[in-house]
Amino acid sequence: MNKKSKEKSILILFGEKVRAERLKQHLSQEKLAEKAGLHRTYIGMIERAEKNITLENIKKIADALKVKITNLFEEL
Amino acid sequence: MNKKSKEKSILILFGEKVRAERLKQHLSQEKLAEKAGLHRTYIGMIERAEKNITLENIKKIADALKVKITNLFEEL
Repeated sequence: MNKKSKEKSILILFGEKVRAERLKQHLSQEKLAEKAGLHRTYIGMIERAEKNITLENIKKIADALKVKITNLFEEL
Repeated sequence: MNKKSKEKSILILFGEKVRAERLKQHLSQEKLAEKAGLHRTYIGMIERAEKNITLENIKKIADALKVKITNLFEEL
């Protein structure tokens, strides 16, 4: 895995974690976005690893999912 | 703590964690920046919570410190 794909994989892994937790809680992307105070389309972009998310938005998503930030990074 | 200071506190807490881990490993900001492939001044800004760091740069710093991302977010 070259450096670029290794970095990109963190975005893919994080996106998959957010999606899995969101579905576990039976939340739509819209509902999670509303809870997190983020735009509806932004959640989709994060789950598809199309955005290099910032720490403040990671915190907003973790709070909205009522999980600790570490929960979104286990095994990453 | 209002919403803004609560969000900002994640940047302050993260900056403190990076600094503590860096000092534990007797690394200068310059050395950590070099290892992480980031600009020397960027590490200082992260430690002072002056930048809303992105996930890819969080990963670069964790890798440079040879810790897991979760280690930088324990108790946050």
